[in-house]
Amino acid sequence: MNIIKHLESTRSEYIESFRKFLRQPSVSAKGVGIRECARLLKDIMDEWGIDAEVLPTDGNPVVYATVESKKSEKTLLVYSHYDVQPPEPLEEWISQPFEAKTVEGKIIARGAADAKGNILAFLKAVESYLKTEGEPPVNVKFLFEGEEEIGSPHLPSFVESHRDMLSADGVVCWDGGLHPSGRPSISLGVKGMLYVELRCRGARTDLHSSQAPIIVNPAWRVVWALNTIKPPGGRIAVKGWYDDVRSPTEEELKLLSEIPFEEEILKKELGVEEFLDGVKGLEALKRLVYEPTANIAGISSGYTGVGSKTVLPCEAMAKIDFRLVVDQDPYRLLKLLRKHLDERGFKDVEIVELGTLLPSRTPPSAPIAQATMKASEKVYGAKPVVYPNSAGSGPDFVFTKILGLHSVWTGCSPPLAKAHAPNEFNTVEHMVKGVLYAAEIMENFRGL
Amino acid sequence: MNIIKHLESTRSEYIESFRKFLRQPSVSAKGVGIRECARLLKDIMDEWGIDAEVLPTDGNPVVYATVESKKSEKTLLVYSHYDVQPPEPLEEWISQPFEAKTVEGKIIARGAADAKGNILAFLKAVESYLKTEGEPPVNVKFLFEGEEEIGSPHLPSFVESHRDMLSADGVVCWDGGLHPSGRPSISLGVKGMLYVELRCRGARTDLHSSQAPIIVNPAWRVVWALNTIKPPGGRIAVKGWYDDVRSPTEEELKLLSEIPFEEEILKKELGVEEFLDGVKGLEALKRLVYEPTANIAGISSGYTGVGSKTVLPCEAMAKIDFRLVVDQDPYRLLKLLRKHLDERGFKDVEIVELGTLLPSRTPPSAPIAQATMKASEKVYGAKPVVYPNSAGSGPDFVFTKILGLHSVWTGCSPPLAKAHAPNEFNTVEHMVKGVLYAAEIMENFRGL
Repeated sequence: MNIIKHLESTRSEYIESFRKFLRQPSVSAKGVGIRECARLLKDIMDEWGIDAEVLPTDGNPVVYATVESKKSEKTLLVYSHYDVQPPEPLEEWISQPFEAKTVEGKIIARGAADAKGNILAFLKAVESYLKTEGEPPVNVKFLFEGEEEIGSPHLPSFVESHRDMLSADGVVCWDGGLHPSGRPSISLGVKGMLYVELRCRGARTDLHSSQAPIIVNPAWRVVWALNTIKPPGGRIAVKGWYDDVRSPTEEELKLLSEIPFEEEILKKELGVEEFLDGVKGLEALKRLVYEPTANIAGISSGYTGVGSKTVLPCEAMAKIDFRLVVDQDPYRLLKLLRKHLDERGFKDVEIVELGTLLPSRTPPSAPIAQATMKASEKVYGAKPVVYPNSAGSGPDFVFTKILGLHSVWTGCSPPLAKAHAPNEFNTVEHMVKGVLYAAEIMENFRGL
Repeated sequence: MNIIKHLESTRSEYIESFRKFLRQPSVSAKGVGIRECARLLKDIMDEWGIDAEVLPTDGNPVVYATVESKKSEKTLLVYSHYDVQPPEPLEEWISQPFEAKTVEGKIIARGAADAKGNILAFLKAVESYLKTEGEPPVNVKFLFEGEEEIGSPHLPSFVESHRDMLSADGVVCWDGGLHPSGRPSISLGVKGMLYVELRCRGARTDLHSSQAPIIVNPAWRVVWALNTIKPPGGRIAVKGWYDDVRSPTEEELKLLSEIPFEEEILKKELGVEEFLDGVKGLEALKRLVYEPTANIAGISSGYTGVGSKTVLPCEAMAKIDFRLVVDQDPYRLLKLLRKHLDERGFKDVEIVELGTLLPSRTPPSAPIAQATMKASEKVYGAKPVVYPNSAGSGPDFVFTKILGLHSVWTGCSPPLAKAHAPNEFNTVEHMVKGVLYAAEIMENFRGL
């Protein structure tokens, strides 16, 4: 294979470009270094023969490029993100988070795995084809956004208004890594999300709690409202919430049963003796993949310091993230939630919508899914770990629902690469394997 | 009356001593100036002919004195406190909180009303008798503590171990002031208190909320536990909680119906349109005086900043203050609460006891109650506003239950004197009236 030779001969330049990319902070949560990073990414792409543009959105810019191929009429859309999580807590890093220092064979940096390593691996695969064969196996479009770590708030409108530019035959969401077993991980979709804040107000100010017999306590109101939304037992009690939840297909259940799920290791890592309701094995996995959730992400009211203070709070707040499974619709559910609270006497509890994402799913038989699975076996010598959808959420619906394409989530980061945590890392070995994985995905996609 | 003449001739020295007392900070919450203030109080008492001692407790010292009288075999125990609330927020004071400056006829200082003004008024009354008649109308014992503003944690053990020293025929808890109507306010008791913190833990650390289908969320556990303790409707659902609650007597109900309750002004001040459950008038007042409460004073879990963060919290906490009415017992109720949570499957919810106070009540017919009511009419020319007990709590049980005495709560601070708030004040007029009120209480108590 020509590209392996090319890759070997340009290995050190490749890793140097990677370090340069890592040394440019791009923290979307704080608006730090975003535009500089988009510009740097464009420069690297241009240098590698991939003509890129920095395009505006209503938020942070996207970096976009097309690479044409005469080998195929097929077009692969590759999505990823150049923004990174905040590096805090800084004191836990063994080297500076934007220094990209190599420590014991690991390149340590915020973004090393999530997703700057991924981005440069796919770009390097295309560059290798350009240098050795003149063109990649398929037409490729790159779409790198700068807001993934803050929930992709402007991606849907950007994709809506650039449908033609983004037309393709399949999508690789290239933002992930290897399963702890060392096998690639492929998710055929994501959960959706409805994120709300419940708010309630009482008196003008916090009062002495001797007033409790006659003055409303908004903390009780929020507690009672929450309890009606999800009573003990854990099933969401909002009428109609489960209407659109469909059962897993035989094919999906088969995929599920093939996922290695090391529950004892997981329990130990998380510090719990049992999973919720004592579920085990496949049952626990099924919940992770198929269960809609109502999670209290935060709750606050009154005095929360040490010791006792007899205060009757004047306001209370709870944040809930509802994860949604196919085919739940966050906008419909938001209306059902309002109706639910109204009918139970909680008109005083305000619902503030803080975020929505549609759930999304691609069938395992989709060409891009098959192409990725085959590439995994070829490059890593092992079947991938395939999830019908991930337990987490993401902007997958912009590809499946807005563009109407099939999409998979995969990537080449090392197992347990500490994405979002201190000492995030990548290795040269994984970067190189990633280039081959990307190349093989393109090769396979051409033939499917 | 001799003492009026004496009071007029020593008026400026009296107010100077008061200012000196105010200028000595004594913030028990921060441990600032406590010992210096106890010493200063003793010095003032000594100077006025009232031999005082500074006695140790397991916390801040008490200042104690006895003044004997040949006129009567009766002994009146006068309780108050020399510690004050923290002065914060400092920027809202129109003069320095420990400067004791006179602004538009008001002496502005932290403690001016609560309770340094009260203390000096009663001392001045006794001093006036000593100077004019050689002795007060009854034997007097003074007990001034230095921890009232932090919940009197060491007063019960001090009183337990000084029963003989504190023997008396009645108690005036001299720590209060005039009703907004200008009439003295007398409370014949207080509510008790059980202050607890509910705590629950889940995983080792906060997790990504995609784990919600299989990992326990302690915020839900605490919400569900709270809901079982007090479901919507507001009645406490812990079995046996109301067992010892007794109905108001005819006498008490009569007192209640005589209390001026300006509910529209109160609602406006608190910024609420309605009282809880739409109660009005006497019904609202009855609740304030007779209803046990379960108040969420604070609740906290997970991410509570702005915007959305999908976190599965690893811990949750709620603070509840339960106010208790006669004859509820906080220790018995604590056990009932534990049993309640255990029986409902909340063994994982820890209960941390943060404070207990027994409820306490003195009958209106008690001699000290009658003496105080009569003194009010004589000095202020108006019937006092008499509460069967206050809606708040205090260490009254050390007198009624440990010493077995009758006790009333009253005082001479101006109406709306801003105790616990910025610009707390007193006036010379109220200080002088207070001396006469104290004198008249002693006179009346001798005859009853």
